[in-house]
Amino acid sequence: MSELFLALIHPPVVDRNGRIVTSAITSLDIHDIARSANTYGVNRAYIVHPIPEQREFAATVIDHWRFDFGRSFDGRRREALELIKIVNTLDDAIADASVVAGSPPLVVHTSARTSGGMMTAELRRKLETPDARPAIILFGTGFGMAPSLLDRADIVLNAILGPGDYNHLSVRAAVSIILDRLRGR
Amino acid sequence: MSELFLALIHPPVVDRNGRIVTSAITSLDIHDIARSANTYGVNRAYIVHPIPEQREFAATVIDHWRFDFGRSFDGRRREALELIKIVNTLDDAIADASVVAGSPPLVVHTSARTSGGMMTAELRRKLETPDARPAIILFGTGFGMAPSLLDRADIVLNAILGPGDYNHLSVRAAVSIILDRLRGR
Repeated sequence: MSELFLALIHPPVVDRNGRIVTSAITSLDIHDIARSANTYGVNRAYIVHPIPEQREFAATVIDHWRFDFGRSFDGRRREALELIKIVNTLDDAIADASVVAGSPPLVVHTSARTSGGMMTAELRRKLETPDARPAIILFGTGFGMAPSLLDRADIVLNAILGPGDYNHLSVRAAVSIILDRLRGR
Repeated sequence: MSELFLALIHPPVVDRNGRIVTSAITSLDIHDIARSANTYGVNRAYIVHPIPEQREFAATVIDHWRFDFGRSFDGRRREALELIKIVNTLDDAIADASVVAGSPPLVVHTSARTSGGMMTAELRRKLETPDARPAIILFGTGFGMAPSLLDRADIVLNAILGPGDYNHLSVRAAVSIILDRLRGR
């Protein structure tokens, strides 16, 4: 099984009008994504934000569970949060993942709007081949990643779809569904 | 495709020590579950709580998006919240679902601890047969549903598993993953 990483992108993302903006880190994204990532054997999940105050906020969310009340309240929550790494840029995340995995990861783009890309089942097969490269999967907050991030991607995943056309999932749900499709049993 | 319903259970659930407790409704559960449910064609998602103040709180969360700021901010959020129904008891949810679907739903139990039950793939096949009965899937908040709810279930689903033993998913993630396994394409 190849090494798998996630990166939660805050800038550049788009807002509901398609403008390029920077979104805020939410504590719930960190918690839910940590628990899903740990369940599916993700090596590290990166919270990417260039604003120092935002990174400090994310650090306090994690430290609360590492050292304070949370440690005694729920050890499984602490365990999951240990795979969260807070970084400045996507480049930092990719560089760190390259060190952990021993080689640069395939960069995988996700979006609620892509239809001509790769299916998750095909990516799963690719990641399960014996000589598979590590992979880092990018998830956009806000209303999705800015188009510029497509230039960074080696693989563009198709949108998650149900029976109909509506697919306005939370980023927390999208992370859990894609991880289940790639690693669930 | 058979009619599909969800019920989010607040009592009776267990806490981290296995004691039977009543959990609180959270606005984020409502939002995330509404969006996942709408993506996967769920007919109605019931928020089950016997305490009037808790039901009123849930109603204000929905009304905020139905009438106020939210209506203009994000119509897709409003659309998703329309399938949320706030009810007093699980019996009320099952009765309502029976009316909507025209016959009583199979009651499906979920848990992070079940291993001798049905796989989601088998339930998917069952729900896709031409004469399939409607189904209502129960999800526990807190640390999961109290054991007494097993007596209500026609089908007990196995826990969601990744590659390892850790499966401490949020209820929001569990809902989205099970819906994707049952209805994703």
